[in-house]
Amino acid sequence: MKNLNFSFELLAHSGKSRLGKISTKRGLINTPAFMPVGTLATIKGVFVDDVKLTGTEIILGNTYHLMIRPGTEIIEKFNGIHNFMNWQKPILTDSGGYQIMSLSKFRKIDKDLGAVFKSHIDGKKIILSPEKSIKIQKSLNSDILMVLDECPSLTKDKNKLSEAIEISTDWAKRCKIEFGNNNEKALFGIIQGGLYKDLRIESLEKLKEIGFDGYAMGGLAVGEKQDDMFKILSETVNYMPKNKPRYLMGVGTPSDMLGAVSYGIDMFDCVLPTRSGRTGLAYTWEGKINLRNSEFKNDKSPIDEKSNIRNINLYSKSYINHLIRSDEMLASMIISLHNINFYQQFMLEIRKSIKNGSFNDFYQKYINKF
Amino acid sequence: MKNLNFSFELLAHSGKSRLGKISTKRGLINTPAFMPVGTLATIKGVFVDDVKLTGTEIILGNTYHLMIRPGTEIIEKFNGIHNFMNWQKPILTDSGGYQIMSLSKFRKIDKDLGAVFKSHIDGKKIILSPEKSIKIQKSLNSDILMVLDECPSLTKDKNKLSEAIEISTDWAKRCKIEFGNNNEKALFGIIQGGLYKDLRIESLEKLKEIGFDGYAMGGLAVGEKQDDMFKILSETVNYMPKNKPRYLMGVGTPSDMLGAVSYGIDMFDCVLPTRSGRTGLAYTWEGKINLRNSEFKNDKSPIDEKSNIRNINLYSKSYINHLIRSDEMLASMIISLHNINFYQQFMLEIRKSIKNGSFNDFYQKYINKF
Repeated sequence: MKNLNFSFELLAHSGKSRLGKISTKRGLINTPAFMPVGTLATIKGVFVDDVKLTGTEIILGNTYHLMIRPGTEIIEKFNGIHNFMNWQKPILTDSGGYQIMSLSKFRKIDKDLGAVFKSHIDGKKIILSPEKSIKIQKSLNSDILMVLDECPSLTKDKNKLSEAIEISTDWAKRCKIEFGNNNEKALFGIIQGGLYKDLRIESLEKLKEIGFDGYAMGGLAVGEKQDDMFKILSETVNYMPKNKPRYLMGVGTPSDMLGAVSYGIDMFDCVLPTRSGRTGLAYTWEGKINLRNSEFKNDKSPIDEKSNIRNINLYSKSYINHLIRSDEMLASMIISLHNINFYQQFMLEIRKSIKNGSFNDFYQKYINKF
Repeated sequence: MKNLNFSFELLAHSGKSRLGKISTKRGLINTPAFMPVGTLATIKGVFVDDVKLTGTEIILGNTYHLMIRPGTEIIEKFNGIHNFMNWQKPILTDSGGYQIMSLSKFRKIDKDLGAVFKSHIDGKKIILSPEKSIKIQKSLNSDILMVLDECPSLTKDKNKLSEAIEISTDWAKRCKIEFGNNNEKALFGIIQGGLYKDLRIESLEKLKEIGFDGYAMGGLAVGEKQDDMFKILSETVNYMPKNKPRYLMGVGTPSDMLGAVSYGIDMFDCVLPTRSGRTGLAYTWEGKINLRNSEFKNDKSPIDEKSNIRNINLYSKSYINHLIRSDEMLASMIISLHNINFYQQFMLEIRKSIKNGSFNDFYQKYINKF
């Protein structure tokens, strides 16, 4: 009989980097894994069939966005996001915490009530409690749910960070209770603590006491330098449970991911491949290129000869440059799909190199390319 | 040996409607044929591979747009539009006449010089002579070229229309000379004369004297009523040479095409499938629907069960409604591809019905649906 339970298995190491496998009832996720972001139940500008072709095994959906548009009532009629958007593989949903910090026009954190904020669409007042966040994520029927956390903006204020940990820990407990027992799904805790090792470890230890199926680093990729992010990862990832997936939220560039993998991170999500795609930026094995630049006006070579999906590499840089300058949608479609494919190829090579024990060579070759 | 010459063969009739076949060195075109419009060397919002999947056998490119962006110099480096945009099947290019009328900020028609106008992009003064239009179309390497015509806006002014015929006839001669002898390509003449039978026939007879590979009705679909268009078609199509393709430019809705086929037209082009696609309008066998409407918010059925391409019919109207309301690009991508596919399915059914002698039944069923 097929095992429908959520589980994580470590397969190999290369230094601190880990090769693993997450099993879910909707399919396997090879780690280190990159999750394209499907904010509003669509990976912007990419057909879901094409997302599959890139080898993507899990995508991310945004609770905050989906609760506002189209609203859970509609998604419930489809028994979740999978059927609504036609993506039958695993989905991870965030809790809404990060978007409340970054998008909503007004917010107040009330430990008991939850996050009180105004919708960025119509200004309507919304209260998101830890319980409500989990209820919504259950309605979305995601496979991996995230606890609601208080995600402060980038700050060096230890009091503010400590307070966020206190609230986030309390909310994490309440999320765990609301989540209940469900072996087919997973609930991940989110570590806060800014760039301070002691705070991070404090937050982590409190979450470990509650007990989660995976642990995420939150509150990074919020404007700090890459070196600062790498430093706090190097100081803290090792304290995260070895037998659970480790997820670095909202990260990042290929080199961000490469660095994080070297410290033992297993999962990533980021809007970069599609957001860059819409502005003409393409990721390649030679680095990032801006296809809007006039240097590409007469360049008949494809974006990236090594990466081919849906004949995208039949298109020349010259043609794509023309499409960008003409505001043609096809430019975004080509580059977004290419970028997601590149990200997945990049993760595939990371996984291969961990398996072969050649991760360090791969790391040295690409850490400064992006 | 493969015959590379342009040729047209009539295969069947049903009433005045004609089933035919155009042969070109880049492939066959079954007629009645619909040509999606690739204004700037892209069918807006649709991958060229997907255009092929719809059964499209020929597309249209716009000389006016392409001469401005990216300019012929770049397209010449690719030996034409086919390689530039990765579409290896036939391409028809218009002459620029219609866009000069509808888009350019300032224009003066000088019989000797040509059309003198300002670019709608940067206001730069451009002179397009008949010779230059053909030279550009040769650079674009299109398979069917159109003569440069003076295309007046909708008017009842017979003097104005007569003058346009005089200029257009002169330019048609000059285009023919510039085109020279090239059996692998075709040059089509364009009939003017507004809604007046006598003027249309005068224009047509003058073009027949010059001799073209096909004949197009120009100056229609410029704001007149469908009945007026059908009336002038009914009065004049019969005078067009029987052994040459007959092309109605810039038309139209499915019912426009159905009516025109009933008078003996063979070819159409229109931006409607993609332009409608970007505003949420989908064509179906039950008629046109606006997927932005709130009635579709909870509608779990697909756009059109009969039409399936790239799994588009896995998407519910409810999901597409959500995408439209969220300004997600995927909405335009889905509906544009669907609409082109629907148009091609519609033409396929027209061709089948002419072959079976059941065109009149098909006509009665669909003439008032759109």
